[in-house]
Amino acid sequence: MALIVQKYGGTSMGSVERIEHVAGKVASWRAKGHQVVVVVSAMSGETDRLLKLAKSIAPRGNQREFDQIAATGEQVTIGLLALALEKAGVPARSYTGWQVPIRTDSAYMKARIQDIDATRLRADCEAGIVPVVAGFQGIDETGSVTTLGRGGSDTTGVALAAALKADECQIYTDVDGVYTTDPRVEPKARRLDKITFEEMLELASLGSKVLQIRSVEFAGKYKVPLRVVSTFVDGPGTLITLEDSTMEEPLISGIAFNRDEAQLTVAGVPDRPGIAAAILGPVGDANIEIDMIVQNIGADGTTDFTFTVHRNDYERTQEIARKLASELGAKGVKGASDIVKVSLVGVGMRSHAGIASKMFKALAAAGINIRMISTSEIKISVVIDEMYLELAVRTLHKAFGLEEAREPT
Amino acid sequence: MALIVQKYGGTSMGSVERIEHVAGKVASWRAKGHQVVVVVSAMSGETDRLLKLAKSIAPRGNQREFDQIAATGEQVTIGLLALALEKAGVPARSYTGWQVPIRTDSAYMKARIQDIDATRLRADCEAGIVPVVAGFQGIDETGSVTTLGRGGSDTTGVALAAALKADECQIYTDVDGVYTTDPRVEPKARRLDKITFEEMLELASLGSKVLQIRSVEFAGKYKVPLRVVSTFVDGPGTLITLEDSTMEEPLISGIAFNRDEAQLTVAGVPDRPGIAAAILGPVGDANIEIDMIVQNIGADGTTDFTFTVHRNDYERTQEIARKLASELGAKGVKGASDIVKVSLVGVGMRSHAGIASKMFKALAAAGINIRMISTSEIKISVVIDEMYLELAVRTLHKAFGLEEAREPT
Repeated sequence: MALIVQKYGGTSMGSVERIEHVAGKVASWRAKGHQVVVVVSAMSGETDRLLKLAKSIAPRGNQREFDQIAATGEQVTIGLLALALEKAGVPARSYTGWQVPIRTDSAYMKARIQDIDATRLRADCEAGIVPVVAGFQGIDETGSVTTLGRGGSDTTGVALAAALKADECQIYTDVDGVYTTDPRVEPKARRLDKITFEEMLELASLGSKVLQIRSVEFAGKYKVPLRVVSTFVDGPGTLITLEDSTMEEPLISGIAFNRDEAQLTVAGVPDRPGIAAAILGPVGDANIEIDMIVQNIGADGTTDFTFTVHRNDYERTQEIARKLASELGAKGVKGASDIVKVSLVGVGMRSHAGIASKMFKALAAAGINIRMISTSEIKISVVIDEMYLELAVRTLHKAFGLEEAREPT
Repeated sequence: MALIVQKYGGTSMGSVERIEHVAGKVASWRAKGHQVVVVVSAMSGETDRLLKLAKSIAPRGNQREFDQIAATGEQVTIGLLALALEKAGVPARSYTGWQVPIRTDSAYMKARIQDIDATRLRADCEAGIVPVVAGFQGIDETGSVTTLGRGGSDTTGVALAAALKADECQIYTDVDGVYTTDPRVEPKARRLDKITFEEMLELASLGSKVLQIRSVEFAGKYKVPLRVVSTFVDGPGTLITLEDSTMEEPLISGIAFNRDEAQLTVAGVPDRPGIAAAILGPVGDANIEIDMIVQNIGADGTTDFTFTVHRNDYERTQEIARKLASELGAKGVKGASDIVKVSLVGVGMRSHAGIASKMFKALAAAGINIRMISTSEIKISVVIDEMYLELAVRTLHKAFGLEEAREPT
C-alpha cells in the first residue's frame, strides 16, 4: 500500500463528465489498496474568466482582491470532485488552501508556500477518506487568501507530497509523458520512462511546458518522485526521479528548443572590468529578462558581448544597446530576431566527453551555422537561424539515437 | 457620524456596471462622514448556477460540499466591489465569512449564525477602510464553510449591524420600500415610511417578499434599526423599527396575501381530546407544512377540522386526510385548491376594537364570501376564493384608508 498524491489539471476538470472520469481514476487507485490525496485546478478557462472580470473593474487593482476572486475557481472543483467521489462510493472531503492550511508568504498572485500542516489530511487518509485539496492557493499570516501564480497547482501537489512524505506525486495532464523532443517537430520523438529532476528542469525551462518549473525544483529539493501521466490515456507516463547512481546514465535525455528568442551583440567594446555590468545593468533596469550571455575576448583589447532576450523585448533592447554602445565607445550593435535556441539535455554529459563536438559535427554536416554557444553541466545550447529549427532538432534526435529505447551508451 | 451597515443583493451586484454603481453609493455615504460596512450577495443567478452544477453530479450529495461550492459566489463579488471601491477612491478590504469570522452551527445549507467577531471590521472602520463582507456564509467549528440558506445575506447584514452596534442596517434591493400591499394588485398601494418589526414579520411571512423573515426576527431581537431602500432609485425607503410607545400607532400598516394555499376540511370528526393531534400528526410526519388551522365545535358532538397547506402538497394531503377520516369515523373530507389567504396587518389592532368586523363588513359589501378566519394579535387572515383576490385587496385597502398618508385613526 502506497500513499499517492494525484494532481489533476484544468482540462481534466473541464466538465462534469470529466470530473466523474477523474473520480473513477481515483476510485481505481483506491481499489488497488492505495491511499490517495487529490489536488485539483480550476475548470479550464475559469481562472482567466475570473481575472478578466476583476481586471474589467481595475486592471491594476489590489492584488489581494485578485487572489480572493481567482481562488474561487478551485473551491468549486474541489467540491464537485468530492461529490463525484462520494457518488462513486469513495468517502471524500474537500479542502481549500486555508482549510488545510497551506501557509504562504503575502506575495499575492505569485505567493510561495512556506509551510503545510498535513495533520487533517493524514487523519482523513487513516480514516479511509480521500482529501480533495484546492491547488494554486494558500493563506498568508494576515488570513488573506493567496494564489501561487500560473501552474501553481503542480507546486501544491508536490508540496503536499513532500509534507505527507508520499510515495509518489502523479501529475495528470493531457500529454502522456515527457518526450525526447516535441513530437510536432520530430514525429519519431519518444516518451521517456524516466528522467532526472535536473534534466526535467532544463527541458522545462527551455520550452517543454509539461510541468511548471517551480514544482520540479520543489520535487527535487524534497526528493518527491514525480510522475507525469495522461488523464485520458492509460499508461505509465514519465517518472522524474533523483539521479540513481547505481544506474548507468543515458547520454542524452532530450532536445528542447525555444522560438521566442532574439540575439544582440555589442561589438568592439573596450575590454575592461565591469563591462558586463555596464551593459546588462541598464537592460535589467528596463525589466528585460536576459537569457544566454556570451563574451568573446578579442585580440585588439576589445570584446564582443552577445546576449539573447525575449523576442517581444527586441526593439526596446536594441535602443538601450545603441545608447550604451555610443557611451562605451563600442564599434556598434548587431542583432537578429529570426533566431532560435536548441538545447541538448542529459545528465550523462557530466561523465562523457565529446558530446559537444558530436553535436557541432552533426549540425555542420546538415549545413547549419551556429551563431552562439552556451554550455552548462547537463546542457549544451546553440543559437541558430530560425529556418533551421526543425532540421536541427531532427538531426540531433537521430545523431544521439533518441528514437531508440534508452540504453547506456 | 454614524456607523452604517449596507447590504446589497444579487440584482445590485448583477454586472460590473452595477457593482461600480454600488461603489458610487458607498462612496457618497462615506463622503457624508459616515463609517460604512458593506455586505453583498452573489451576482444574481450565480448561486443557482453553482448549485445546479453540484446537483448535476449528486442531487442529494454531501451538503458540506454544496456549501463549499455555493459560497464562492459571494467571494467573487466581495473582491469585485473592493476593487471598484478602491477605484472610486475608497480604501476597501474584502472578507469571506471565515475571514471575519462569522461562526455558525454545522447545519449546512441552512446554518444559523452563532457568533461574530467584529474586531477586524471595527479596526478597518477606525482606519478609514470599508470592509466588504460576503453575505450568506460562515464557518463552523470544524472549519468547514457553511451557508445560511436563501436570503441569508439579509441575515448577515443584520447580524453584523448587531455585532458592530451599528446605527442602522440598510437593505438595498430592487424595490424602494415596504408597501401597504402589492402595487401590481392595487395601484394605489403606498410606500410606508415606517413599520414595526412585528408588522414586517407578518407581512413578510404572508408573502410580501421584500426581506428575509429571519433577518427581521434578528433585527427585532437585537434592536437593529432596519431600512429597506432601492439601489436604483434614490429615496428614504422604509424604516423598520421597534414599536415606539410615544407615537400613536396607526391602525393598519398593510395587506398581505398568499396564492399558494389549499384548504382541507375533515368534517364530522367525533369531538374528543387529541383529535387535532390525530389529524395533524400524520400530515406533519409526511413533511407537509400546515399554515392555518381552525376547529369548529358542532352541536352533534362532532367537529369540523379545517386547515391549509401549500398548494403543491394538496393532493398528497388529501390522500392522508381521506385515510384518517375513515379511521376516525369522520363524515368525509372536503377541500379546495383555488383559494387564497388575505391578511390585514397592524400593531394598532391591539388597542383598537372593531377592526375584524369592519373587515368582514367591507368584504361582505363587495360580495366576497369568507371560507375561513384566523386571527392573531396584530393580524386577521381570511381564506377566500382565488377569483376574488384583487377585489378583496382593493376593497380592504380603501376601507382602511391605506392610500392616504398614515395617520393615527
